[in-house]
Amino acid sequence: MLERYGHGGDLESAAETYGRSGFLDFSANINPLGPPPGVMKQLEHALSSIIRYPDPGHRALKELLGSRLSLRADQLCIGNGAAECMALILLGLQPRRVGIVEPCFSEYTQLSEQFGAQVQSVFGTRENGWRADVAEIEGLFRSVDLLFIGQPNNPNGIQYELDLMRHLAGEAERCGTYLVVDEAFIDFIPEAKRQTLLPELERYPHTILVRSMTKFYAIPGLRLGYAAAHPDLVQAMTNKQVTWSVNGLALLAGEACLNCGDSYERDTIGLITEQRRLLTVGLRKLGCEVSEGEANFLLAGLPVPWTAERMQTEMGKRGVLIRSCAMYPGLGEEYIRVAVKAQEDNKQLLKVMAEVLGIEVDL
Amino acid sequence: MLERYGHGGDLESAAETYGRSGFLDFSANINPLGPPPGVMKQLEHALSSIIRYPDPGHRALKELLGSRLSLRADQLCIGNGAAECMALILLGLQPRRVGIVEPCFSEYTQLSEQFGAQVQSVFGTRENGWRADVAEIEGLFRSVDLLFIGQPNNPNGIQYELDLMRHLAGEAERCGTYLVVDEAFIDFIPEAKRQTLLPELERYPHTILVRSMTKFYAIPGLRLGYAAAHPDLVQAMTNKQVTWSVNGLALLAGEACLNCGDSYERDTIGLITEQRRLLTVGLRKLGCEVSEGEANFLLAGLPVPWTAERMQTEMGKRGVLIRSCAMYPGLGEEYIRVAVKAQEDNKQLLKVMAEVLGIEVDL
Repeated sequence: MLERYGHGGDLESAAETYGRSGFLDFSANINPLGPPPGVMKQLEHALSSIIRYPDPGHRALKELLGSRLSLRADQLCIGNGAAECMALILLGLQPRRVGIVEPCFSEYTQLSEQFGAQVQSVFGTRENGWRADVAEIEGLFRSVDLLFIGQPNNPNGIQYELDLMRHLAGEAERCGTYLVVDEAFIDFIPEAKRQTLLPELERYPHTILVRSMTKFYAIPGLRLGYAAAHPDLVQAMTNKQVTWSVNGLALLAGEACLNCGDSYERDTIGLITEQRRLLTVGLRKLGCEVSEGEANFLLAGLPVPWTAERMQTEMGKRGVLIRSCAMYPGLGEEYIRVAVKAQEDNKQLLKVMAEVLGIEVDL
Repeated sequence: MLERYGHGGDLESAAETYGRSGFLDFSANINPLGPPPGVMKQLEHALSSIIRYPDPGHRALKELLGSRLSLRADQLCIGNGAAECMALILLGLQPRRVGIVEPCFSEYTQLSEQFGAQVQSVFGTRENGWRADVAEIEGLFRSVDLLFIGQPNNPNGIQYELDLMRHLAGEAERCGTYLVVDEAFIDFIPEAKRQTLLPELERYPHTILVRSMTKFYAIPGLRLGYAAAHPDLVQAMTNKQVTWSVNGLALLAGEACLNCGDSYERDTIGLITEQRRLLTVGLRKLGCEVSEGEANFLLAGLPVPWTAERMQTEMGKRGVLIRSCAMYPGLGEEYIRVAVKAQEDNKQLLKVMAEVLGIEVDL
């Protein structure tokens, strides 16, 4: 199994496992356009700044991000990746019981258990388009101190409607439960279709939105994420953050990315929307059951009798990495997740998968 | 006060405070030679790797570091700076009571309190060359679960003798107390003079050595440190570490720095040794009481009636940053700490300080 550290994108484990390099990596969901134009050049010029400590207050990035999101600096916590933001939420708010909606990003459970909380789950089911029953989520609010929900959710890319999110955030207020909405992939969704509570955040002092800057801007090696929430919650998180936790180049990259202009964002969303459609068609031609999702990745059930593990191995040997979802509670061993990449790469994925499946289709 | 985030090297706060930029920074203790030759070039070439996730297992760096230090990979925990290593120690070992030897690096107390421990102190005194009474340290072992000690200690640069360290590590074993030796600055000391338990680490399963790679190799903006300890302790730390906490460029920089060859290390130590001597002489000519220390910084008591805060302000206005030590428990408001830098910079420090003091001496 490739995911020995629990995640995709692990090229070192892939090299060890398959004895080769030069992979086409569909196991991590990174913007196929790469970083915004000019950002690499700016970082190259800024490289000499690594001889100085990072700003421990993240002041410049907070200010820029605040103006972009119409939030005050005291509503923002900058993190060493979105994963650190989640850890700081758990360390700062100390929930004893955490609720999650499976199948979901494995870190909700891992971090919760790591920091001493017990996890309770409800499940989205295939029959229900991978959505969980609302009454079951409401039930969770009454029995946990904090609830994680992905929006769009990883690994199936579903979004809950904004009205439902408002209802959940209202329930969180009523129950005194914290609602953590993981919006790590929301930037990949066209703005008009994003179901986010961000503009109404002030109404929900128990709601925390977590976002990643490393996926959309294709800088996962640098680590950068943030949380938006009531200042008291931000303070509780910051109180647990190790000084200089966010490195200096990540801060600079964040500023450069936010200043990159609208066309990069438009191009990315256009590419992902179109390629997700084409990739869905192609995977279905290969006999996969592909879920409807709105993110830059697709959840697919392999045709019988294929298991994710066997498919991952066969494709890995051929230089293509996919994510096995067999380890996700609520998903069977036939599920894989693939990133939506650029057209040529997606074609190569389909071609290699067809080869492994031993079928000939017109892709 | 410059240290609003508790530390030196905060150029953003300096700019806000003094309304200028272009500082000569003696408030952070970074190798004046800058990163080893070739490392910046290697990082420039490796910059495109930020589009990939870092290795969550830190495998290549652990292997290289292990071979350098004659340790196994399972004895090493790579951290997002030495500060993260300290946080992971506290999170992993959950001491309720932490002992420290003041005056010392403020993070021992801050992190301990941040993660719920109570702090008990003993004090090194000026009369005793800033060393704490050994009987008092022994006393701490009986009343705390974990003890931090700096070697060499920040801000005074003192080292305890190796035999004493052996004695303390033995006491730690006997009492079941953890001994955390912060060796963040030990690389600046000539190898023959380093009083480190590293080669004997196997004998002391309750001892953890913490080291920084960002000070000696002048890459504080990237964040990189490590801890060396018994595999069980390393595992306890790693269990609390957020996935991808150490960024990809830091891992690459660490490898590049370790491969830079001996002459950089020799040159650095030669420069620091010589310049520390000259800077001590100069500061004494200006009426400062300078402590004997072995690190790349000096603790100095200002001549009466100067306070650190006033001196910091006057020098800051003139573009030179120094560390006020007024906030260190156990030090009076007249204490400053200055980094040992290259000759021209040190001369400039002395010149500006003479100007502020309003005295004329032959420096």
